[in-house]
Amino acid sequence: MSNRLGEFRERRDRQNHLVLSHANLETKRFFALDSASYRAGALDAATKELLGLVASTVLRCDDCIAYHLTRCAEEGVTDAQYREAMNVALVVGGSIVIPHLRRAEEIWQELLEEKQQDGG
Amino acid sequence: MSNRLGEFRERRDRQNHLVLSHANLETKRFFALDSASYRAGALDAATKELLGLVASTVLRCDDCIAYHLTRCAEEGVTDAQYREAMNVALVVGGSIVIPHLRRAEEIWQELLEEKQQDGG
Amino acid sequence: MSNRLGEFRERRDRQNHLVLSHANLETKRFFALDSASYRAGALDAATKELLGLVASTVLRCDDCIAYHLTRCAEEGVTDAQYREAMNVALVVGGSIVIPHLRRAEEIWQELLEEKQQDGG
Amino acid sequence: MSNRLGEFRERRDRQNHLVLSHANLETKRFFALDSASYRAGALDAATKELLGLVASTVLRCDDCIAYHLTRCAEEGVTDAQYREAMNVALVVGGSIVIPHLRRAEEIWQELLEEKQQDGG
Amino acid sequence: MSNRLGEFRERRDRQNHLVLSHANLETKRFFALDSASYRAGALDAATKELLGLVASTVLRCDDCIAYHLTRCAEEGVTDAQYREAMNVALVVGGSIVIPHLRRAEEIWQELLEEKQQDGG
Amino acid sequence: MSNRLGEFRERRDRQNHLVLSHANLETKRFFALDSASYRAGALDAATKELLGLVASTVLRCDDCIAYHLTRCAEEGVTDAQYREAMNVALVVGGSIVIPHLRRAEEIWQELLEEKQQDGG
Repeated sequence: MSNRLGEFRERRDRQNHLVLSHANLETKRFFALDSASYRAGALDAATKELLGLVASTVLRCDDCIAYHLTRCAEEGVTDAQYREAMNVALVVGGSIVIPHLRRAEEIWQELLEEKQQDGG
Repeated sequence: MSNRLGEFRERRDRQNHLVLSHANLETKRFFALDSASYRAGALDAATKELLGLVASTVLRCDDCIAYHLTRCAEEGVTDAQYREAMNVALVVGGSIVIPHLRRAEEIWQELLEEKQQDGG
Repeated sequence: MSNRLGEFRERRDRQNHLVLSHANLETKRFFALDSASYRAGALDAATKELLGLVASTVLRCDDCIAYHLTRCAEEGVTDAQYREAMNVALVVGGSIVIPHLRRAEEIWQELLEEKQQDGG
Repeated sequence: MSNRLGEFRERRDRQNHLVLSHANLETKRFFALDSASYRAGALDAATKELLGLVASTVLRCDDCIAYHLTRCAEEGVTDAQYREAMNVALVVGGSIVIPHLRRAEEIWQELLEEKQQDGG
Repeated sequence: MSNRLGEFRERRDRQNHLVLSHANLETKRFFALDSASYRAGALDAATKELLGLVASTVLRCDDCIAYHLTRCAEEGVTDAQYREAMNVALVVGGSIVIPHLRRAEEIWQELLEEKQQDGG
Repeated sequence: MSNRLGEFRERRDRQNHLVLSHANLETKRFFALDSASYRAGALDAATKELLGLVASTVLRCDDCIAYHLTRCAEEGVTDAQYREAMNVALVVGGSIVIPHLRRAEEIWQELLEEKQQDGG
């Protein structure tokens, strides 16, 4: 198993800490609002993470995709649900999305392996 | 009640007919694949329409938004669910999304009025 | 003098009122944060409006451009400053920006006429 | 026959004149460079216009599409060539391109009608 | 000679295999449609690859650029044709395209070296 | 102190040299126009670099961000000004901008360290 996912998590945590330790009030409020927007409400957390995943995929941001994939796995999104959501992103966003789909698949496979190990 | 929604539907149907009556095989296959991607499967149709709506909103396409709003209304998406999905789109896509959010709100209000009249 | 600018202002006010009268807490917080981000601080208000104008132009949003143009005029941005900022947007964003530059010029001319009338 | 094409041409000419009568040196140089980039060289003019058309379509700019469609018609691009080029744009750019494809079809049909009248 | 190109090819093949071994029917159909869209028809294969290259460049996708560059080299696109096509992409897409133009140049130089070695 | 900044500068210089040694006339003119657009005029150089920085951030181009950050540091942009400009970019562009904000923060910290060493 590669450590693509581990590297992403370490880098993201370190960089977020760096940004927030220097951020002005408005930027801190944006980060707080970002977190609040994915909390369960009329839509459950899994659905909101799928919305974030598809938005990140059509906008083609690998780090955003990796983050929402991790959260999708935590919220119990199934393999078939993952594939249907990413197919919507592919059809809406076109073949320009494919390189991100390829990298997402590697992350998703790592997440499935983590789940198996946790459940073993 | 304005006829923004009616104009959109009439124009979309007429233009789609024009495109498909001239389209080559590959373009026809794309349209068929587009339709197939929103059919209920591991994710239900309402969730898929919300994915299409959020993708259309962060990519800022008014006609795509109007189409998925219509389908969301047909699939029983509630007002609170609509607002939570659009808020995810707003936070992911930023203030550049706001003019589309404004036009979406007008379409959504028309759709709510249609529902009330149908149910009256 | 055309009323392109007047129509934009009327429509924007009406639609913003419609959105905010229905918005959930997170969307209301986004709108408040959006306003706060352009208040004078280490950068003066005119510079921040130019930043918003250039961002709106490279992202190609006519309503956002019209709004920041109005604010630039209010903050005393000169004609030469407007042209240098838009030229940066044109070079960064490419010829795909030109149709928006054309529509911005019409709005800017209306704003210059308004200023002359106010000062006459 | 609608006058969508006529309106586009009149508006584009008027607005370009307005922009260029006020533009600074850098913006004028950009417009000159833009024109120079489509002149026949190692690639013929028709191929360059198809490149401009597909770039405009995946970036989703209706005015840019209308302009390059007009130039494609002038350079003798055939109906089948038009459809293959737009299909590449559709597959690369995804279903978000479809509303622009619909409007392009209307412009293309007007251009075909113009050609028939000219040749009649 | 660097192995940027070799690494790209190996990674792309491995990842495509991973995606397609798990993909649902719709995603498989998208990949098939993507391939079909570049086959010679009313436009020859070299022209279609140039269309794909310019679309990939204005949408700023390095992997897509690398793929279409490889195909352009296979279809006999000349150095001067490459430069005219990329200049159209640069003018349409703006300076934001330049980092991708820089990386494309490195790939293109590797492809030219490969051709010389094959023909030597 | 990491050498992220040093690597960027070395790579950018090497690649620009490669591009320009092969570029056709139009591409060379684009590069010259790009440079000219940031020279002090009615707006000072620092303001123009902030415009370039915000445009690069909302369009999400790491190399463009790194370049304009370097120029901002050279033109005396303060830490508070940097944060207000990037906050405008964040609010306009949305959370999809955050990964670029994280990488920008690392570059900016390196630039602040360079300044301290130069002034020590």
